[in-house]
Amino acid sequence: MNDEQLHAMRHSLAHITAAAIQRLWPEAKFGVGPVVENGFYYDIDLGEKKISEANFAKIEKTMRGIIEYGDDFERSEMPIDQAIEWAKESKQPYKEELLNDLRRSGTTVAKDLDANELGLTGDGKSAVETVSFYKNGKFVDLCRGPHVANTKDVGAFKLMRVAGAYWRGKETNPQMQRLYGVAFATQNELDTYLELLEQAKLRDHRKLGKELDLYTVSNLVGAGLPLFTPRGTVLRDLMAQYSNQLRQERGFNKVFTPHITKTALYETSGHWAKFGDELFLVTSQETDDDFALKPMNCPHHTQIYASRPRSYKDMPVRYLETTTDYRDEKTGELGGLNRVRALTQDDSHVFCREDQIEEEIDGLLASARELYGTIGMFLRARLSYRDDSEGYLGGVALWESAQSQLKAAVISNDLAYFEQEGEAAFYGPKIDFMAIDALGREHQVATIQLDFVQPGRFGLTYNDVDSQAKQPVMIHCALLGSIERFLSIFIEHTGGWFPFWVAPEQVRILTINDTVLDYVEEIEEVLRGVVLMQPVKYNEIRFTRDDRNESLGKKIREATNWKIPVQLIVGPHDKEAREVSVRTQVGEEKVALASLADYLIAL
Amino acid sequence: MNDEQLHAMRHSLAHITAAAIQRLWPEAKFGVGPVVENGFYYDIDLGEKKISEANFAKIEKTMRGIIEYGDDFERSEMPIDQAIEWAKESKQPYKEELLNDLRRSGTTVAKDLDANELGLTGDGKSAVETVSFYKNGKFVDLCRGPHVANTKDVGAFKLMRVAGAYWRGKETNPQMQRLYGVAFATQNELDTYLELLEQAKLRDHRKLGKELDLYTVSNLVGAGLPLFTPRGTVLRDLMAQYSNQLRQERGFNKVFTPHITKTALYETSGHWAKFGDELFLVTSQETDDDFALKPMNCPHHTQIYASRPRSYKDMPVRYLETTTDYRDEKTGELGGLNRVRALTQDDSHVFCREDQIEEEIDGLLASARELYGTIGMFLRARLSYRDDSEGYLGGVALWESAQSQLKAAVISNDLAYFEQEGEAAFYGPKIDFMAIDALGREHQVATIQLDFVQPGRFGLTYNDVDSQAKQPVMIHCALLGSIERFLSIFIEHTGGWFPFWVAPEQVRILTINDTVLDYVEEIEEVLRGVVLMQPVKYNEIRFTRDDRNESLGKKIREATNWKIPVQLIVGPHDKEAREVSVRTQVGEEKVALASLADYLIAL
Repeated sequence: MNDEQLHAMRHSLAHITAAAIQRLWPEAKFGVGPVVENGFYYDIDLGEKKISEANFAKIEKTMRGIIEYGDDFERSEMPIDQAIEWAKESKQPYKEELLNDLRRSGTTVAKDLDANELGLTGDGKSAVETVSFYKNGKFVDLCRGPHVANTKDVGAFKLMRVAGAYWRGKETNPQMQRLYGVAFATQNELDTYLELLEQAKLRDHRKLGKELDLYTVSNLVGAGLPLFTPRGTVLRDLMAQYSNQLRQERGFNKVFTPHITKTALYETSGHWAKFGDELFLVTSQETDDDFALKPMNCPHHTQIYASRPRSYKDMPVRYLETTTDYRDEKTGELGGLNRVRALTQDDSHVFCREDQIEEEIDGLLASARELYGTIGMFLRARLSYRDDSEGYLGGVALWESAQSQLKAAVISNDLAYFEQEGEAAFYGPKIDFMAIDALGREHQVATIQLDFVQPGRFGLTYNDVDSQAKQPVMIHCALLGSIERFLSIFIEHTGGWFPFWVAPEQVRILTINDTVLDYVEEIEEVLRGVVLMQPVKYNEIRFTRDDRNESLGKKIREATNWKIPVQLIVGPHDKEAREVSVRTQVGEEKVALASLADYLIAL
Repeated sequence: MNDEQLHAMRHSLAHITAAAIQRLWPEAKFGVGPVVENGFYYDIDLGEKKISEANFAKIEKTMRGIIEYGDDFERSEMPIDQAIEWAKESKQPYKEELLNDLRRSGTTVAKDLDANELGLTGDGKSAVETVSFYKNGKFVDLCRGPHVANTKDVGAFKLMRVAGAYWRGKETNPQMQRLYGVAFATQNELDTYLELLEQAKLRDHRKLGKELDLYTVSNLVGAGLPLFTPRGTVLRDLMAQYSNQLRQERGFNKVFTPHITKTALYETSGHWAKFGDELFLVTSQETDDDFALKPMNCPHHTQIYASRPRSYKDMPVRYLETTTDYRDEKTGELGGLNRVRALTQDDSHVFCREDQIEEEIDGLLASARELYGTIGMFLRARLSYRDDSEGYLGGVALWESAQSQLKAAVISNDLAYFEQEGEAAFYGPKIDFMAIDALGREHQVATIQLDFVQPGRFGLTYNDVDSQAKQPVMIHCALLGSIERFLSIFIEHTGGWFPFWVAPEQVRILTINDTVLDYVEEIEEVLRGVVLMQPVKYNEIRFTRDDRNESLGKKIREATNWKIPVQLIVGPHDKEAREVSVRTQVGEEKVALASLADYLIAL
């Protein structure tokens, strides 16, 4: 089944849902019923009556009846005035409103809705004269289609949930009920998807974040402003350290810049005109200067570059800063760590000569590949180029050279990639990375962007070999992107079973009884001497001891709930044999105390 | 000469300065002339005429004449109405204004001035009826004294500078000239002080910050918002790492909190009422919530503590966070790194039981002593206690127990200390540390504060052994204080010759000619293997290579200007002998390549 067929099938299921609703509650008023990711929904108004999950079985049974009966989907067209009459007679006020809007001024009034759902037959721009309908059994709906031929032709489906939804998304409009379903070509695919949902629910980073004590939110501090506990901070710091280490090995140097700036900085950079209304504004009670919280770091970094004269011999100049940026996201869009107002970027900026672009990109690509390889996520690069349209800044020759340097670097790094013309930023071509997690979901993560514009706006130069002032190129790069967002992905990717090197609590010693306490001290002495060097350097073992007077079973249960990768079980026999029972996710084995350090380093 | 004698002597020199001015410019109108640190000033109004440094020689010569002539300082008293008549007749309008204010409402109207300067004879509270004068030669001045007996009794002095100063500090008042002098008991002490000033000027961190490329400021970013270059960031990071390491070894765990919060957090903590007008306010364009940039971190940390139930067995809970706070300082008070608007604190908070206070304080004191000992600054502790007045929160028994625990910890840590009653914060007693730099100047640095109040305001509890909810005590501590301010002190303390372990560029290899380039690679391989473990762990050597085709003299000169502690000079003879010439501040010596790593580790 191709994408169009899948779309038609899901759309047909929306109609079948509405048909079932109409059969069960003939007074039902209908809004729209479009296709969404993995399924469909239909907006319904039953007046006082509210559908709940308790009704799903009955609705699904009715839908199955309609499907088995096997009505054809029949298309027809109608002049719009006649369609309005139909809506009146059918007592469908929402359809009537839509049709009236369409007659008055074409689709522009209905741009809040998917044009596909509106039964439009015209070009979607000029006023509408004729609309199309689809009919299956007794159910008739304004619709452009396409649909499957017969109700029997739909695949496997399931109603998922029902939620409140304002008519056409406006709070002043009546509140309807939105009934969601998922649908796939086969029952097998549906089952796989439902299993994935179950998995995802268990791995929800908001749930695990609380269970594993990784972060918290406070009403006094505010939404989208998470506070990281000691365990969560270990994850943040080690991931940032890894990301930084990969670039420090390639000549990047850390810098530090404040979180606020006069807005003058963004007036110069051009960000003020473009993003001014997405900024948190800062007011001083002492000066009349206007300040803002920084939403990105590049303008700050230009000021460090500009603080000294630079020669062609100094290039590239490479700055690295893990720092928190602030973006004034809508409250309704905030959720867990996925979208926050305080986002920490593992940001870097290269200032280089044009002939250095490929080598610099190459180093950054190698860093991205190594990082995501280490945590077991497959990476795909999207190369975004300019097209022939206006509005790209910088010469065409520079763009073409840069684009081919980007592509050459991607190929030499053996990365999966695809190319998209017309997707570049106006200031330069870029590479975005998609990482695929353990549930097969794709997430946009790292980004590498060329910038031909900001160096000019800030008047940045270097003294070239011919003693002329030349303008450098900037390369923006974040490997993790936003650390908060990365962690939301990483927590769900691992299900909270973090790789050994980065687990907040790596080792817990569980005693069987108190006769082994002196031996536990020997074990701790060994652990204190273990320093992991891969993938981040100088990573001392984080261990604890559970020597409470509790049963071993309870201790193991608790350590497993905390998803501690290595549990060292120590009883009198272990003490005598000078070994420990090492319990990991893959099983349990005896390890001699003398080999424990090597065992852990090899994990 | 004791402090009172020194004060009287400096004050007498203020009068002698004014007497000299009056002799040279009889039309001079006088403001006030108090004693300040190391000297004195006098505010003078000569109308159109302005004193400049060119006049200093003449004024000093006149002063010396007055001193050698040997007039006594004669005290007299006068009813205030008669004093006002004297001011009118003497054409001293500033003195007349002061006297009128004093007659009207006592000293309260003149609280902008030092009461000692005003010739008050009363208790300084009720209305003034009589004032005192001092006369030396023909010069008569409203003054409470005391003075030396005779103008011959003053020590060594020097006029230093003249600056504009508004009468009584108000911008709407006339601008006068403030003539500063320094004075000491002996010429020797004065010379030492002047030499110190010369030294301090050479070590000025703003000058060195630029020369050594440590930080920059940008007009586009704003005043008090320094940006740290790679070299300055090495200093920041290593000092913070050291400060953190000392506490991590004592059980502190890092946390992370955002830089903004809803103001609701500070309404609960009580900071809003006290410091609301010192905050940078943050406006969201998306929500109506009021936000502020955090000026301190304790309220944020309480929210992490509060995110889970705590048991007496979990205590102490110890959080550590190096994070940047924002304070809306007056533009006029900003200068270099000493006072900034973006100040990074190496902050920590302990939540503990009352019986754990001493041990916790003990660990923090040991950390402070070790840190300042390592960088060669002598530390003195000021213990600030409550007195009998009202307004201290928390029971007296708790205060007394806490104060004696503080003192016991200071004594057991063998720290120099002094005690001050009535200097505690309302929320608990504290220890402030004074560090003495290489020029003998004292700076307030680390602080440790007990807090009996915030845990209550935020309703923090732990479940005690008797299953009752108890309120923990908080201990605030910053070892460096503000990292920016610490660096301003550290740069001047070291004069930019940072200790080897923390120097941004620790080693530079200087080649004599190109025949040694292969040998230089061997040296670099050795350097890459050197990891310092003291005082911070895992500190890899930061080295560069100067293999330009320049003279060795020039290379040494440049490396010395950069104050690079270890210069490795490599010539053909060194290559042959498999050694290097190590040039440090104390001299030059040959070191075998095989011993170089050990040599550097021992530095």
